[in-house]
Amino acid sequence: MGSVWMSELSERSGVPVPTIKFYLREGLLHRGEAQGATRARYDERHVERLRLIRALVDIAGLSLERVKDVVEVVADESVPVGRSIGFAHQHLAAEPRTAPSETATARVEALLAEREWGLDASAHAVALAEALDQLDAAGQPLADDALGSYADAMTRVAETDLASLGDARDAMGAAAYVVTGTLLVEPVLISLRRIAQEALWLRGREQRG
Amino acid sequence: MGSVWMSELSERSGVPVPTIKFYLREGLLHRGEAQGATRARYDERHVERLRLIRALVDIAGLSLERVKDVVEVVADESVPVGRSIGFAHQHLAAEPRTAPSETATARVEALLAEREWGLDASAHAVALAEALDQLDAAGQPLADDALGSYADAMTRVAETDLASLGDARDAMGAAAYVVTGTLLVEPVLISLRRIAQEALWLRGREQRG
Repeated sequence: MGSVWMSELSERSGVPVPTIKFYLREGLLHRGEAQGATRARYDERHVERLRLIRALVDIAGLSLERVKDVVEVVADESVPVGRSIGFAHQHLAAEPRTAPSETATARVEALLAEREWGLDASAHAVALAEALDQLDAAGQPLADDALGSYADAMTRVAETDLASLGDARDAMGAAAYVVTGTLLVEPVLISLRRIAQEALWLRGREQRG
Repeated sequence: MGSVWMSELSERSGVPVPTIKFYLREGLLHRGEAQGATRARYDERHVERLRLIRALVDIAGLSLERVKDVVEVVADESVPVGRSIGFAHQHLAAEPRTAPSETATARVEALLAEREWGLDASAHAVALAEALDQLDAAGQPLADDALGSYADAMTRVAETDLASLGDARDAMGAAAYVVTGTLLVEPVLISLRRIAQEALWLRGREQRG
């Protein structure tokens, strides 16, 4: 696409004009090329950026402040594409409500070390420790071998995720793709798990007679 | 435990007295054995039932009406334990907002048939079809081989789930256990997937140099 007026930007991106104006005022979307005092022309980069903003707002449910942080890093051309995507991905973790317990943190660190998953200070590792604490608090602590089996299964899931990611395009498009794919596949996985639970449960009952 | 007054029921279950009174008024919790006009004695079945109610309200976030439906079926001693648990499990699916598309419904039916997962009218199958529609709507449709890989991985997860379920105790306790385990393990799985994505992503970048 060449450059277009705001009405066509709205059509192409599916974002209503008043919302685009709001994103411009808030500094989430960069200005177009001014054409006189009140009009501007927009291009493909605006469409891509709007796509990332919508993924972060509508699908990830991030606050505008966090969206702004992510979009700024992803738009920074001095940041390598891989790091941009990683930065967006880290922001998908909810901000921790309370610090996880030392026990849960140590379990997660041991798991990461054992699998040689060289992540330090990952927001998702903190979220995992919190989730383990929740199970403890509910009186249903997760056994080590169950945690290991879950980690194996989710590694297979991540391999599938990365295979469908394909070649990273520009940072903005790739970040939107990863955010959308990561989040919208979660309900697919959760439903599949529940369906598999019922199917296995049913089979078990039939076998028991 | 023998029979106890309400204050001890509150202590044992961790549910505050005013909340217990509310559940009694709403008919979610069955009455205790009356001791005069205003007092009653409660027993282990009240503790178990409160545990299920809390799992459904606090962890599953169900409406009181849906909680009442579930508790009534689980409490019905003419219903076999396996069916009671299945009924509670079905209610974990959110009520569908819109009917899923025919295409998505057909894909899910094909998946269930292929794996000989003999489920009809499962609420989770409807939720899966809806999740596939969401990915389509976001312009990132899920390929058939990716869906198959995810189904394989989640079957492994379900096997682990069922192994830790152990022997079904009474219906009330087992239903609370399944509801809590199903829901509180979800954030564990989601965090593990995100961690595995980052670890694999990082490894891929190192290999690419």
